[in-house]
Amino acid sequence: MPQPIFDLLKTSSESAARRGRLRLAHAEVETPVFMPVGTQGTVKALSQQELWEMGFRLILGNTYHLHLRPGEELIRRAGGLHGFIGWEGGILTDSGGFQVFSLEDLRKITEEGVMFRSHIDGSQHFFSPESVMDVQFALGSDIIMAFDECAPHPSTHDYTVAAMDRTHRWAKRCQDHWQQRRDAEPNLYGELFGIVQGGAYLDLRTRSANAVAELDFPGNAIGGVSVGEPKETMFEVIEHTTPLLPTDKPRYLMGVGTPVDLLDAVRAGIDMFDCVIPSRLGRNGSAYTSIGRINIKNARYTDDFGPVDPNCEEWCCRNYSAAYIRHLYKCDEIMAARILSYHNVSFYGRLMEGIRKSIEEDRFLQFHREFLARYEQEDDKNA
Amino acid sequence: MPQPIFDLLKTSSESAARRGRLRLAHAEVETPVFMPVGTQGTVKALSQQELWEMGFRLILGNTYHLHLRPGEELIRRAGGLHGFIGWEGGILTDSGGFQVFSLEDLRKITEEGVMFRSHIDGSQHFFSPESVMDVQFALGSDIIMAFDECAPHPSTHDYTVAAMDRTHRWAKRCQDHWQQRRDAEPNLYGELFGIVQGGAYLDLRTRSANAVAELDFPGNAIGGVSVGEPKETMFEVIEHTTPLLPTDKPRYLMGVGTPVDLLDAVRAGIDMFDCVIPSRLGRNGSAYTSIGRINIKNARYTDDFGPVDPNCEEWCCRNYSAAYIRHLYKCDEIMAARILSYHNVSFYGRLMEGIRKSIEEDRFLQFHREFLARYEQEDDKNA
Repeated sequence: MPQPIFDLLKTSSESAARRGRLRLAHAEVETPVFMPVGTQGTVKALSQQELWEMGFRLILGNTYHLHLRPGEELIRRAGGLHGFIGWEGGILTDSGGFQVFSLEDLRKITEEGVMFRSHIDGSQHFFSPESVMDVQFALGSDIIMAFDECAPHPSTHDYTVAAMDRTHRWAKRCQDHWQQRRDAEPNLYGELFGIVQGGAYLDLRTRSANAVAELDFPGNAIGGVSVGEPKETMFEVIEHTTPLLPTDKPRYLMGVGTPVDLLDAVRAGIDMFDCVIPSRLGRNGSAYTSIGRINIKNARYTDDFGPVDPNCEEWCCRNYSAAYIRHLYKCDEIMAARILSYHNVSFYGRLMEGIRKSIEEDRFLQFHREFLARYEQEDDKNA
Repeated sequence: MPQPIFDLLKTSSESAARRGRLRLAHAEVETPVFMPVGTQGTVKALSQQELWEMGFRLILGNTYHLHLRPGEELIRRAGGLHGFIGWEGGILTDSGGFQVFSLEDLRKITEEGVMFRSHIDGSQHFFSPESVMDVQFALGSDIIMAFDECAPHPSTHDYTVAAMDRTHRWAKRCQDHWQQRRDAEPNLYGELFGIVQGGAYLDLRTRSANAVAELDFPGNAIGGVSVGEPKETMFEVIEHTTPLLPTDKPRYLMGVGTPVDLLDAVRAGIDMFDCVIPSRLGRNGSAYTSIGRINIKNARYTDDFGPVDPNCEEWCCRNYSAAYIRHLYKCDEIMAARILSYHNVSFYGRLMEGIRKSIEEDRFLQFHREFLARYEQEDDKNA
């Protein structure tokens, strides 16, 4: 029996939205939570101090990227990823599965694992369920993800079954190896989460959710969504799968999504999210605001000396105007990426804060409705 | 008679080094001072809050760049450059002369001024002594620089004389126009500094220093140095020219230089400096340390989990190791540019602090010697 790491504090009376708390080696984390993505050991353009001051206590690192550069052995010697990057909060690492399977021409899958070539220098590497546990132990992650095969969309039912069954066998191997290492080394830490696959096939999602739940991980993730399928399909999968996952354990929706996606998925009972879009869009000149997404390149901001979002009281909007950020963006200045990344990532942080508060006060659906009513004034019109 | 804006607090008993204070519209500034360069209204990769916390109270903006993008009229409407970029300290703007004269094939000089084409879109613009005053008034600069012609190195004696004489005539026109605007508009502020030219010819430097001193500006600059001449020649010019400038007014050495240059020029009696190199080198992976300049790309830093400079107690070195910064640099992450720009610019700030303190305590030459003894352990060996 794993030690429980999750307290379910409250469930919304009108929806499946939940308010909880994760207890991890480096942090207590309030859920629902959004985790900024630090692919290569840095959330692009932001400092660890800035993430901390925005209130984040759990960030994500990418096993594939960190394995290639600078390598987990160097990171282990630096005191794990926490020591290497100087971050005192929690860290979740993915399993590298998603990246490795995206390499297409550069990888070969066997029952044992995946042989792949680095996208950087073509060097050959091998990931197995066991090696991926070892990499993540070396990184010192608070949450370790099982090695899964994420089938592309669309895939045939047959291929999706094969990938899913392999994912289940690998999940068991991850768990066995994880347990063996933990039994042998009392100082090791890091909780192992399982991942549900099954593509867009709801029958397979049912099978996968049951198989993964059966393994009794301390937390469960839904993988293989937001991989090119229509948004409708994605939410069919989320709404179908989430209630099949144990209620007493955290549920993590991998790689999702927009602010509206987060609200919809929280309503379905999701507790954890990660996504690169707030920082990626920031680097590309888009800003999330309470009335929707805007694009700073738009000529209307040329002489807009007010903040990007009048409802944002963070560093970005207290100090810098839309006109100035637009100027920086057009001049290709690093500060444009810094300010808009800060703005968007903190927007996500505040959105999650609002969501948590609304669940505590049992008015989540009202919060959801009010957010959308404001947000859709602007969204997608010019971003 | 201009109002004095400079208090000469102390002169070194063993050298020409001086300790002073500038009184500007937005700031009191302790000298000798280094001004970080915010070419396009941003000191690359650094926030205004970071510059403030490093102790800087005077930064530089570039008239040429800001005239082209976003244009001085927009900046004036934003409350001047201070309002536009969100900076409460002082701002010095150059005259655009240096940039315009560097355009070579894109500009045409007449007695009236310079016609030039934008390096961005080829659009045609005209700078005259009068228009350059108007641009800098619109920017709301605390210190306005006269429009000068910076002759390239090497130039003939004849050409250098012609450029210098034109610079003197233009200085007078700048002063007349500046006075006229100030008389007409009581809310205008900004002190006008003259610029000495004369290339590498010491006879011309004497003539130019006398001519500029004669105009009785509240501050005087040495221009046309660090334009490709050997370092020896540069210091001949500095050591020859500086003592010819009025002792009761600040002396500004434009566009210089390395930490060692700053020390040598302070010894010659210079009070003010600006230079892009600390941030440019930072973006290129070089870091200034108390034992010399190092390059983070060097393999020896791969597993150096200590700070880049053990004598640096700033944000950069308190939080991030050489190994981590090297990893970020090799991954082309924005945080590498941020951390090393912060480190180098704050290194310059601390160097100036040390210089000021040593002059106060009349031990500047000892400070200079001790700095060099440490610094040359490493400098230029691998940077």
